[in-house]
Amino acid sequence: MRTLFFLPLFAVLTGSALFTQNTDEEIIRKIFDDALLHEDALTNLEWLCSNAPGRMVGSSESEKALAWFAGYLKKAGADTVFMQTYTTPAWKHISSAARIFSGDEEVRMRTVALGPSPATPASGITAGVIEVKGLDELKQLPEELVDGKIVFFNRPVDYTRINTFRAYGGAVDQRIHGPALAAAQGAAAVLVRSVTTAYDTIPHTGTTKFDSLRIPCAAISQVDADILSGKLKSSPQTRVWLKIESMDINSVTTHNLVADLRGTVHPEKYIIVGGHIDSWFNTPGAHDDGAGCVQSVDLLRIFRSLDLKPKNTIRVVLFMDEELYQSGGKAWAEYVKENDLKIVAALEADAGGFAPDGFTVDADSLFFSQVVAYKPLLEPYGIHFIRKGGSGVDIFPMKQLNVPLLGYRTGTQRYMDIHHSAADSFDKVNKRELLLGSGCMASLIYLIDRNMGDKQLQ
Amino acid sequence: MRTLFFLPLFAVLTGSALFTQNTDEEIIRKIFDDALLHEDALTNLEWLCSNAPGRMVGSSESEKALAWFAGYLKKAGADTVFMQTYTTPAWKHISSAARIFSGDEEVRMRTVALGPSPATPASGITAGVIEVKGLDELKQLPEELVDGKIVFFNRPVDYTRINTFRAYGGAVDQRIHGPALAAAQGAAAVLVRSVTTAYDTIPHTGTTKFDSLRIPCAAISQVDADILSGKLKSSPQTRVWLKIESMDINSVTTHNLVADLRGTVHPEKYIIVGGHIDSWFNTPGAHDDGAGCVQSVDLLRIFRSLDLKPKNTIRVVLFMDEELYQSGGKAWAEYVKENDLKIVAALEADAGGFAPDGFTVDADSLFFSQVVAYKPLLEPYGIHFIRKGGSGVDIFPMKQLNVPLLGYRTGTQRYMDIHHSAADSFDKVNKRELLLGSGCMASLIYLIDRNMGDKQLQ
Repeated sequence: MRTLFFLPLFAVLTGSALFTQNTDEEIIRKIFDDALLHEDALTNLEWLCSNAPGRMVGSSESEKALAWFAGYLKKAGADTVFMQTYTTPAWKHISSAARIFSGDEEVRMRTVALGPSPATPASGITAGVIEVKGLDELKQLPEELVDGKIVFFNRPVDYTRINTFRAYGGAVDQRIHGPALAAAQGAAAVLVRSVTTAYDTIPHTGTTKFDSLRIPCAAISQVDADILSGKLKSSPQTRVWLKIESMDINSVTTHNLVADLRGTVHPEKYIIVGGHIDSWFNTPGAHDDGAGCVQSVDLLRIFRSLDLKPKNTIRVVLFMDEELYQSGGKAWAEYVKENDLKIVAALEADAGGFAPDGFTVDADSLFFSQVVAYKPLLEPYGIHFIRKGGSGVDIFPMKQLNVPLLGYRTGTQRYMDIHHSAADSFDKVNKRELLLGSGCMASLIYLIDRNMGDKQLQ
Repeated sequence: MRTLFFLPLFAVLTGSALFTQNTDEEIIRKIFDDALLHEDALTNLEWLCSNAPGRMVGSSESEKALAWFAGYLKKAGADTVFMQTYTTPAWKHISSAARIFSGDEEVRMRTVALGPSPATPASGITAGVIEVKGLDELKQLPEELVDGKIVFFNRPVDYTRINTFRAYGGAVDQRIHGPALAAAQGAAAVLVRSVTTAYDTIPHTGTTKFDSLRIPCAAISQVDADILSGKLKSSPQTRVWLKIESMDINSVTTHNLVADLRGTVHPEKYIIVGGHIDSWFNTPGAHDDGAGCVQSVDLLRIFRSLDLKPKNTIRVVLFMDEELYQSGGKAWAEYVKENDLKIVAALEADAGGFAPDGFTVDADSLFFSQVVAYKPLLEPYGIHFIRKGGSGVDIFPMKQLNVPLLGYRTGTQRYMDIHHSAADSFDKVNKRELLLGSGCMASLIYLIDRNMGDKQLQ
């Protein structure tokens, strides 16, 4: 009732998109038919999880993954496929282990190093433990209490946040900034309660930001965090042994993978679509971000399958190293700047391959209002919102070049259960949810290419 | 931008709900906090799937499940807990098996009887096979072609439907009406391709509607359906052996479980909330409808936990036998009529315990517009729509008593992968998605109780 009442007014307000609605509606229906009836995205993701898990920048797995997708994109009909080569520092994880020593008891903890944690001595570090609930609590502790200790950040996520990205955002400061702060206060090492919505025995890694001083740091599972906290309460003399084997790599040569579907009217203008090919060392990276990669690649397949001839060049970019140093996105933005590429928009998919939910837009108001006007066309396929918001770590460096940025968003309830952990595996992916993502992304890019390319970058 | 623009107008149009928005908003936030921080719904569901799978009407598992929830509801603080006893015919599945005989080959098919299929002779039925894509194709076949044969309905669901309930709805006529039609045309038995979105080796059962003539009938997995179809093409002399052991039960005494939270202003008026406790014989019934049961029960716990004192009596009903003969819902409506119960509204949850999506309403326009007015309060928690629509098989018989009906709806993408099959198991349930459902249902019932009870049934 309400919708019908508002529609005429709405149509006037939102402008041009609805004038071409019939045709656009039909094309979008064809895009989703094609997306849902082809399994390439699913089989690519299964291959990736099975054959190239733990594909950190600098690893052979990461390069193997790039080679696979280069081959697939050629077969799928890309006009051009190439690697953008660059060099970056990297880091390699070898092993992580931790134990509690409390009275006569010795308890193994499920643990995984944060990146880029330095190695411990070969015999590990054994020290007393200071438990804190966050950065502020640590800052208030006298230095002699922290000196030589293992600082244990133990604040769980707030389970009552409805959007799990916000739950994560409310606790991840301990992981990102805790080790640097503890190091500055003289700590020997850091343990962090895994930043996850799943209460289980699986540890979740992630990045930490060091200043000059670096100390070994690792995440433990939520169950182990409670065990450790309990031991500390019952026996304050409890000590922890932590051993991490890892190594810095001064420089590796690596790549972003680039594939084009050449524009028929403005081949010199680009619409970029991508995800990141790397994953943490401890996970198949099915949702983070295997899903975004196979969906981006599927978009090119869909355009070819339906013989949609884009006016602008559709450029798929699979970015390296989103997780550790974000070097791929930075190298890509430099490439864009050096080559003075004209970019109509850039879309990143890095929020998991779950059921469609919406798009975020990080662009000026004109671009935003143009994209919002497409919402009625996408709502039947599960797009509940198009709103302003950050759109992806890999495309973010292009913001300084005034590129309008877009992010594909999915239902968040399951994502933070598995994020950055061994549980982010192929069996957590639902085929239809994944394929609907290909359809949503291809539909939005179709609309932007058809309706907005001419207006941009004249 | 658009939302802000329309909001004042919207507030005027939708009436009373927004005048109490501040208070309602706060209560709803507390409801979700409580829902997300308690695991009773999850542990009840785990118990149910582990201890009472295959809980068909008449089975000991179904009565065991009722007893568990009666005990839990008392502990959770229900004012009254009782069983509504009634008698119904029932049916018992014992075993299902099918094989293809094609040339020298013998291939076992993954199969499960439809309910209430009669048994085959102890040696099974062996016959040639007629493959059809639907009811119309069968109707056009000459009787001599069908006589004594096994009719094989082999039309898959349409994978391009976005809502999987619609995909299911487009293919399930073969299962519901196919056996009766084939029987009328002289067939010996029926096989149906499983009505599911998952292409795998798991068979999915379901109900079939016989007239007077009944013949054995079973579903085979989608993979087996393609194997059988392939064999029939390459070798039309292919025969199938089908054996079903099952028995009709003339009459069983069984129950709907009823638990009340007594109203403080109108204890004689009821708001009913429920799901169905029975499941098919071949499944733990985690999503269908264990989820709806544990969410309905959790609603009562939430009201007690927050000391929300409903004006009307909140009555949780766990219905027996939604799957086979729908006898629980019918017996319940008779009870309502005989006792002249005043019912403000009835809400059923029987669409899976996935992430919240919306509510359907089957009521007059006044009631509908009142419920729609609550949407802004529920949107932050994932309620994307409140629309007219059928609301549940168990509560449907109350429609003739002019009871306004409501259905809780969730994301559909994963549901029809597992529906009525062994794959509908506890591991397919996500804790947060399940608990958000408790929150959505409790919030809507809170709003209806607080704002609408006085206006109804004066």
